Amino acid sequence: MASTVGSVLRLSIFGQSHSPAIGCSLDGLPAGIPIDIAQLERFLERRAPGRSKTATMRREADTPRIIAGITDGHTNGAPFAAMIENGDTRSQDYDELRRIPRPGHADYPAWIKYRNWHDVAGGGHFSGRLTAPLCIVGGIALQALEGMGIHIAAHIAELGPQPYVDSRLNDHSWDEAQTRAILEHQLPCIDEGAAAAMYAAIIEAKNELDSLGGIVECAAYGVPAGVGDPMFDGIENRIARLAFGIPAVKGVEFGAGFGVARLRGSENNDPYRMQEGEVCPTSNNAGGILGGITTGMPIIWRMAVKPTPSIGQKQQSVDLARGCNAELVVRGRHDPCIVPRAVPVAEAACALAVLDALLEDGRFEMPAARELRFSEA
Amino acid sequence: MASTVGSVLRLSIFGQSHSPAIGCSLDGLPAGIPIDIAQLERFLERRAPGRSKTATMRREADTPRIIAGITDGHTNGAPFAAMIENGDTRSQDYDELRRIPRPGHADYPAWIKYRNWHDVAGGGHFSGRLTAPLCIVGGIALQALEGMGIHIAAHIAELGPQPYVDSRLNDHSWDEAQTRAILEHQLPCIDEGAAAAMYAAIIEAKNELDSLGGIVECAAYGVPAGVGDPMFDGIENRIARLAFGIPAVKGVEFGAGFGVARLRGSENNDPYRMQEGEVCPTSNNAGGILGGITTGMPIIWRMAVKPTPSIGQKQQSVDLARGCNAELVVRGRHDPCIVPRAVPVAEAACALAVLDALLEDGRFEMPAARELRFSEA
Amino acid sequence: MASTVGSVLRLSIFGQSHSPAIGCSLDGLPAGIPIDIAQLERFLERRAPGRSKTATMRREADTPRIIAGITDGHTNGAPFAAMIENGDTRSQDYDELRRIPRPGHADYPAWIKYRNWHDVAGGGHFSGRLTAPLCIVGGIALQALEGMGIHIAAHIAELGPQPYVDSRLNDHSWDEAQTRAILEHQLPCIDEGAAAAMYAAIIEAKNELDSLGGIVECAAYGVPAGVGDPMFDGIENRIARLAFGIPAVKGVEFGAGFGVARLRGSENNDPYRMQEGEVCPTSNNAGGILGGITTGMPIIWRMAVKPTPSIGQKQQSVDLARGCNAELVVRGRHDPCIVPRAVPVAEAACALAVLDALLEDGRFEMPAARELRFSEA
Amino acid sequence: MASTVGSVLRLSIFGQSHSPAIGCSLDGLPAGIPIDIAQLERFLERRAPGRSKTATMRREADTPRIIAGITDGHTNGAPFAAMIENGDTRSQDYDELRRIPRPGHADYPAWIKYRNWHDVAGGGHFSGRLTAPLCIVGGIALQALEGMGIHIAAHIAELGPQPYVDSRLNDHSWDEAQTRAILEHQLPCIDEGAAAAMYAAIIEAKNELDSLGGIVECAAYGVPAGVGDPMFDGIENRIARLAFGIPAVKGVEFGAGFGVARLRGSENNDPYRMQEGEVCPTSNNAGGILGGITTGMPIIWRMAVKPTPSIGQKQQSVDLARGCNAELVVRGRHDPCIVPRAVPVAEAACALAVLDALLEDGRFEMPAARELRFSEA
Repeated sequence: MASTVGSVLRLSIFGQSHSPAIGCSLDGLPAGIPIDIAQLERFLERRAPGRSKTATMRREADTPRIIAGITDGHTNGAPFAAMIENGDTRSQDYDELRRIPRPGHADYPAWIKYRNWHDVAGGGHFSGRLTAPLCIVGGIALQALEGMGIHIAAHIAELGPQPYVDSRLNDHSWDEAQTRAILEHQLPCIDEGAAAAMYAAIIEAKNELDSLGGIVECAAYGVPAGVGDPMFDGIENRIARLAFGIPAVKGVEFGAGFGVARLRGSENNDPYRMQEGEVCPTSNNAGGILGGITTGMPIIWRMAVKPTPSIGQKQQSVDLARGCNAELVVRGRHDPCIVPRAVPVAEAACALAVLDALLEDGRFEMPAARELRFSEA
Repeated sequence: MASTVGSVLRLSIFGQSHSPAIGCSLDGLPAGIPIDIAQLERFLERRAPGRSKTATMRREADTPRIIAGITDGHTNGAPFAAMIENGDTRSQDYDELRRIPRPGHADYPAWIKYRNWHDVAGGGHFSGRLTAPLCIVGGIALQALEGMGIHIAAHIAELGPQPYVDSRLNDHSWDEAQTRAILEHQLPCIDEGAAAAMYAAIIEAKNELDSLGGIVECAAYGVPAGVGDPMFDGIENRIARLAFGIPAVKGVEFGAGFGVARLRGSENNDPYRMQEGEVCPTSNNAGGILGGITTGMPIIWRMAVKPTPSIGQKQQSVDLARGCNAELVVRGRHDPCIVPRAVPVAEAACALAVLDALLEDGRFEMPAARELRFSEA
Repeated sequence: MASTVGSVLRLSIFGQSHSPAIGCSLDGLPAGIPIDIAQLERFLERRAPGRSKTATMRREADTPRIIAGITDGHTNGAPFAAMIENGDTRSQDYDELRRIPRPGHADYPAWIKYRNWHDVAGGGHFSGRLTAPLCIVGGIALQALEGMGIHIAAHIAELGPQPYVDSRLNDHSWDEAQTRAILEHQLPCIDEGAAAAMYAAIIEAKNELDSLGGIVECAAYGVPAGVGDPMFDGIENRIARLAFGIPAVKGVEFGAGFGVARLRGSENNDPYRMQEGEVCPTSNNAGGILGGITTGMPIIWRMAVKPTPSIGQKQQSVDLARGCNAELVVRGRHDPCIVPRAVPVAEAACALAVLDALLEDGRFEMPAARELRFSEA
Repeated sequence: MASTVGSVLRLSIFGQSHSPAIGCSLDGLPAGIPIDIAQLERFLERRAPGRSKTATMRREADTPRIIAGITDGHTNGAPFAAMIENGDTRSQDYDELRRIPRPGHADYPAWIKYRNWHDVAGGGHFSGRLTAPLCIVGGIALQALEGMGIHIAAHIAELGPQPYVDSRLNDHSWDEAQTRAILEHQLPCIDEGAAAAMYAAIIEAKNELDSLGGIVECAAYGVPAGVGDPMFDGIENRIARLAFGIPAVKGVEFGAGFGVARLRGSENNDPYRMQEGEVCPTSNNAGGILGGITTGMPIIWRMAVKPTPSIGQKQQSVDLARGCNAELVVRGRHDPCIVPRAVPVAEAACALAVLDALLEDGRFEMPAARELRFSEA
């Protein structure tokens, strides 16, 4: 397997950067969930390229064509499927791409694995463009979760050489104003000043023919306690398996994350208190997960996104045909920083993981039955 | 699902801290792999408790009883299975454990998920003790990999309040001496001085009825290039899914990991050079993985282990039966720091992930056929 | 994979005929299901050998040792696991077994697949003895289903050269008396006379050093309508995948089964009528399944069981070491007919398939929460 | 799950009878397999409707649009995906279809399962039209297998009230002339006279506003010995799981199948003999499979296909809205017999199952690497 994942909710992603189209299917979605296509398109717009100087100039409409699974504005229980046509592709000297692998890209390992039969155009199936279908199914999952009061938000927690930004997602309860603010800034970041500084850093790197990495933080609010499994299907395992499917992600952490290494048990344990008749941890170092199972607190996680490997500078590589060293300058359009566009992708991955766990536990709130109508006069 | 994982190699873990026994099965292992039980026991000994003042005093023999899958010292193609009897269990006031959840443990989410039917004794299926069967199957996988020249090593990269230790696993090629040194120090750490300082930190925390967390670093040497898959079954996804199955793990990163956030593309990209006729990256920020697929360089990853939640200090909790706040003092034997014992567990998880990917790709080197013998005179 | 199966309910079977023990694990079972071990043992007794002249004389206690997953008489949400020690094993000239494959057994394909490393003793992992752990997990599933009013029954529908027996399981509703009668006859068959005739046929074949096959029919009563999935996870697919995991099964059919080939649509379609306010098909050619989904009528299916390949007659085979033809006489104890012992195995497979589908659909009726007790005075 | 299946080769099917399109993806296909699109279209043509008086008059071009996974005429290692636009759809009074379920169709169980949110138009996701994408991926698998000398053939073994036809697929070795002959007759049947008689029977049933069922027999030639797994992933389990995914299939059997019930062991066991240095069974009651693993003999299996439930006669049903009995006349275009069109679908299912098992066992013969070309002058 490779591009198929999930337990009860089964996701498949297909397409290459320059194939006729890219697409996805999602099997296992309950029937009767209302789907707002305009809302889905607005969500996809957040990931789409060509919107800002910080992103690639490849302009894609990224309008999804719904193929199956929706009838009369609701999921119909059959597998959902959608596609995006690949329009704005440019041909290039692909033979050189086959011979001289780009550092930091999958070119070299793919050349070995696929014995040189892989599609190299635009990165093939390894392209970041494949996050578009991931966002389509993720956007569907987000709408399914909203129906039971679960909200997911993400933002840029760190970007480039900036000192660590102190704005964090609310780890106690959903802050709707905070979620809205993220979308209004120059980059999807809680703090307006930090957003502006991050933006400037990207432009600076771009002008130097270089690229920047960063950290995306994501939270899921309203997931009831008791969802997920011990060991290999905990919420952490499920989110990590999806998040590491996003190209360029090199680390995933939950709650206090790698910071736990410097905490003592007395500091890291989240004490419980009763609040208005509810059991409530007073801190959330656990990131809302203990033993793989939700505690009822927000699920908080972060993913590290590496700097775009495609940079305009001359780089050292090898010529696989001649068996000698070679220089390489990556041509074409590319993002000086993909972190801003990775923000909705983190939300998509999180939504799919949470919805799958809810379904497997029989905890998803099924929509009511559709009324039987009489067609007679 | 929960305690079952893997694609071609299918792993199941079962047992609770105080059930009659704990065990594991591993389906999909090729036939003909020589298995050295004494070597397996030495591996398990590295995880076993009661060996040091830094670990729980619960003394378990942890001797595996091989149930199935081995004939005449070789895997026979049938599912491997093994068990460890649970000997040294002590009864306790379990009713209190049900009512007053321990902070940082799975008690509260398990109470919700299992509607109070879970086994609370010793942590039940959430106990760190379940890493023993994980090490049994991992130890089998390690021996399978050794047969094709793949070596896996791990050590403590960071522990407690220590400044970050500068000793790192060789990320270019296998350093047998380094691997051996790790096992000879007071704690499994490359640097002897760091090991002693970490040991002292654990004793200090223990005396203060507290606990410490840390970071385990692990490397797989000799995995050929071209193994693994794009998107959801990359080497990163596979290792992460297993590593987050180890209790207390809150973060997983590969290569430069979260550090990529502060690198530029020109710094993070690993340049290629030809070395003795082989394509070789000159650095390994990728941790041996690009696009989910191995590059031929060592696979390098780290996992963050939280401080043991069981501490001797009085903690704030709630009484679930009465619906009011409560104080809690966790009694019984527990590790002031489980990081040292987590080192072989990381190796086990890594071995299982790598072996599964090799098998799925048809890249595992199958042992030769067994000669047919004549029994006649 | 091989001996692992299931979606939400994940089953693993391990062991060989002559390994120290055989066993199973079952992951995904909800917590709080009351389990009656004595009832489980009575169920296993129906499969156990050595009870009758129609079965092998290998006498196995087949008493399961519960390893994990049960606390205070209820499932605790952790994986269930159990084992049976392998007591009465007899050594034999196994080198001959390796060299001269038994016709009708897996010896020859296993020799190729496992490159001669397989365990040949007693048939290894291919032994019918592995249906004992399948019955353990199946027996657990049966008790889980009983809690929501689902009953499963099976009997011998056809055996040996007998003319087709006209007694059929009630395909409209559960007939408790019929289910009970099956267990009281000389063989598990609805009709007492047929049971006696079948018994005589087996004894006759046995005396001629031969063996007989047959057909087992199975029904699940009380499964609500609307359970299962279209295409590859329909109830038919799920039952078939498990039933073909029972050694010697060569065919599986549902409802009218292969008989549909000679029916017209007007005969095969089951008309609907309202009965006491309920939608009710007036016949059940569908075997309770349309489009992979239950109709609310009993699920009816049959499996064809081949005659035991181990027979006392001289047979033609080959010598794999010498590469020449050879004669073979299978020694040891074996069943002249395994069909009677396959009856509870069919029930076990059916129960596991139905429970898995109910769980995946969120339709299993979860047991109530356990009351929190106060341990104080 | 529902419409997703496979171990290493992961298949997804999506679409409804009247959705904008139907499609499929196939993940896990090795790179470098030459794919002949014209050959694929000829294969699909065998399943397509509107070709004969025995099939529905719904005329679909059924021309697949390849979306992804193919570059320069070869698989490229990325998931394969393809679609067929749904052109010739006719609107109807769907409200009646929701209220009055058609006997023999999935309408009623789907109404329960999907709480009335399912797409009823043309049968939705339950439509036999979904076998078109199954044939697309099956056709790809067939071409992959041909590259290693594996051929798959199927024909109608029995149809309607005809006496059992004595022509059988060669169960010893591939008979290319026989395979070719099947495609030349009026219906895909080995015997020309039987084909004509079957054709006449279908026309007769059609004129009586009725429909016929039948049995399709399928064989895979050239599969090497030693492929498949014991218990739940044997070749039988894999084929059965896919075959029961074909709408209308109610039974699956292998080799002697249900006939084993009347055979003795001495008759059913296939003796081994050496033939030209090869181990060769002298009969093939096993259908090429013992213990779930191939014997090297042809894999032979049969599936029972029920008569099309859509018939023009008045039928008894119920009105779900009014809760009373109702009469129903199914309008629209439908096949009086789908057995002829099911023949290539059986081949597709068989090819997918065999290819998946070969891949999981590392026994698929990987295509050679593609030569690196120099683009310079």
